[in-house]
Amino acid sequence: MTPSAIPGPIDPPARLLMGPGPISAYPSVLRAMSAPLVGQYDPYMTQLMGETQELYRGVWATSNDATLLVDGTSRAGIEAAIVSLVRPGDRVLVPVFGRFGHLLAEIAERAMAEVHTIETAWGQVFAPSAIEEAIVRVKPTLLALVQGDTSTTMNQPLDEIGAICERHGVLFYSDATASLGGNDFEADAWGLDAATAGLQKCLGGPSGSSPITLSERAVEVIRSRGRIEAGIREDGDASAADFVRSNYFDLGMILDYWGPRRLNHHTEATSMLYAARECARVLLLEGRDAVIERHRVSGAAMLAGVEGLGLTVFGDVAHKMNNVVAVEIPAGVPGDAARAALLEDFGIEIGTSFGPLHGRVWRIGTMGYNAREDAVLTTLAALEQVLRRFGASVPAGGGVDAAADVYRGAA
Amino acid sequence: MTPSAIPGPIDPPARLLMGPGPISAYPSVLRAMSAPLVGQYDPYMTQLMGETQELYRGVWATSNDATLLVDGTSRAGIEAAIVSLVRPGDRVLVPVFGRFGHLLAEIAERAMAEVHTIETAWGQVFAPSAIEEAIVRVKPTLLALVQGDTSTTMNQPLDEIGAICERHGVLFYSDATASLGGNDFEADAWGLDAATAGLQKCLGGPSGSSPITLSERAVEVIRSRGRIEAGIREDGDASAADFVRSNYFDLGMILDYWGPRRLNHHTEATSMLYAARECARVLLLEGRDAVIERHRVSGAAMLAGVEGLGLTVFGDVAHKMNNVVAVEIPAGVPGDAARAALLEDFGIEIGTSFGPLHGRVWRIGTMGYNAREDAVLTTLAALEQVLRRFGASVPAGGGVDAAADVYRGAA
Repeated sequence: MTPSAIPGPIDPPARLLMGPGPISAYPSVLRAMSAPLVGQYDPYMTQLMGETQELYRGVWATSNDATLLVDGTSRAGIEAAIVSLVRPGDRVLVPVFGRFGHLLAEIAERAMAEVHTIETAWGQVFAPSAIEEAIVRVKPTLLALVQGDTSTTMNQPLDEIGAICERHGVLFYSDATASLGGNDFEADAWGLDAATAGLQKCLGGPSGSSPITLSERAVEVIRSRGRIEAGIREDGDASAADFVRSNYFDLGMILDYWGPRRLNHHTEATSMLYAARECARVLLLEGRDAVIERHRVSGAAMLAGVEGLGLTVFGDVAHKMNNVVAVEIPAGVPGDAARAALLEDFGIEIGTSFGPLHGRVWRIGTMGYNAREDAVLTTLAALEQVLRRFGASVPAGGGVDAAADVYRGAA
Repeated sequence: MTPSAIPGPIDPPARLLMGPGPISAYPSVLRAMSAPLVGQYDPYMTQLMGETQELYRGVWATSNDATLLVDGTSRAGIEAAIVSLVRPGDRVLVPVFGRFGHLLAEIAERAMAEVHTIETAWGQVFAPSAIEEAIVRVKPTLLALVQGDTSTTMNQPLDEIGAICERHGVLFYSDATASLGGNDFEADAWGLDAATAGLQKCLGGPSGSSPITLSERAVEVIRSRGRIEAGIREDGDASAADFVRSNYFDLGMILDYWGPRRLNHHTEATSMLYAARECARVLLLEGRDAVIERHRVSGAAMLAGVEGLGLTVFGDVAHKMNNVVAVEIPAGVPGDAARAALLEDFGIEIGTSFGPLHGRVWRIGTMGYNAREDAVLTTLAALEQVLRRFGASVPAGGGVDAAADVYRGAA
């Protein structure tokens, strides 16, 4: 590359990210990432790791000692949970209500599990009884269940599932990537054995770090498959024949790195640790319940707003996540061109969609830092302009007024 | 967590990181990470991804189209390369000359490969003929060879290995985590099929993103194992029975995400992408050869400096990496207490060591942003004070003078 061809420094255009994630990060999270690095065994680093674990116990509502981060995006956390908990040949049950259920099944298949799925229509969730029936039939080792699936906006109720799993001796894992921090989640009270997330949704950070929490029962399974890598193994360290088929995602080794032995595994991604810690810190400073309530109110305002613009909402609204809504693209409006206009002329991003909904709905998020009145009203004002430009008949001010009413009612 | 128990914002102590990595990042890399986020299919984002690929072609000295990032730490890149190139049962040859050779073997074992190792003493490298003999004997699918192993400081010559692999029909992978950017590396000229790195060594960034480059031959192997995940699969997308046993590390899917199809896989870790791009940008702005030369001179200065302090250098100095030196801890000096004093009193970190060298040597790095005269001289001045305090007999100014002479000679 010739010197003149080398591009300039990072200088992103102004963007208000109102899609299904990633969304605009909290300013303090961005600032945290520009802090200088420290060594991986610096007392400050190990202190931060411990603080981060404790902060995430607050976020997950758990007392699990095994509460930590996986260094990768949210699907890194998913894969770490599944490959560490599931042996080749084990049965895994995945209730699928959107794209991310397919992803859990896919990851379990790659881990050589015997995967069984049940499906419901996109836009619906499962009754606990349907999940219990499948558990009785399949007798899985692990139930892998998405909480919030952005592909459909649905929020699967989890509060009765832990007791069902307990009754049948099944490990209960949930992917809370899209939901954690913006919707109720009670790891201990709901009987979760494992749960994973990402920063780039309601936690208001960048993608690249995956918070995870593991029950004692899950840790026992992982420990039974323990293997310490050659090169740092010491006399007396036994290795199970039944080892995890990944080094990077072997939660036993990751636990040893985060735990008192501090056995070297990866080199912790320091700047992402800074970000993850700050995401949890701002959440707990505001208050976990207050943040969820802010998501609830902003989600209700956006829902009222899009309905106020005359748009039809997709799916079972009673089971919608707080932080994202899917709206049908009005007949005659070119979906991608309208999204592009919103981005180019107003700097606002909303989302397209996957699979059966591709081309049919837009997805609009209200999460993390952007679960705010000004972000919601600005998005609705701009969307009104764009819809009108593409020939849709929209009531002037109908979206903004309806959303503002929700905020006034909540105040 | 009660509000009063919530810890304060990230505020690291001042540290000059002169260990084997991670090291202090370039200030502009830290600044890049505080830039606001954009959406994952924002035109600015896809432009940045393309620029980052082109920048890393310059860093790797390759024209490989398949030059990209894996979202995780350097060992995520290693695992992605190995699990994507190696089928269960394939033979893999790993010449081991330090801890990270053991790691490559470990990762290949977890991928269910039939792993064969050859070993040499820590502090030595392999003659190309020894590697060729083992290839002839083992007939591996893949040769996995560390370039620079920080555990021993050795830099394995790679320039003749590609031709050997070509002759015997073996794929050639190298882990250049510790060496890339501070030592010669010629992906195309040396015949590499795959190479991976991390940001936290000579590239001067934080851990958490792994640059990777793949030859056309490597891409063919990966494509022959292609599988597109359910949920985004379309009619006509075939899936190989022989799929990669990981979703997150399936380079075929990661290539489809970085390539023109932009098929959703993970959500790219935006802030780490910003960091990775800036690491390559500062390297190419200074000039690749100039950066390697700066590492060579700073490494020579540190080597002269520790010898000027009367310390004994470990290993075959003729094959030492430019960016790290191992010195024997003088008799009577408590290694960990001296390192702690250097950290606490001077804010300078140097490294301990692993395995057979644990407690025997310190490792001192001069890499990335810290391959600088002031960093080298400051470290030597402080080390002199600490050695003297712990009772070692050290010549006053002996380290700083010897190092300064190297910089004057190089000027």
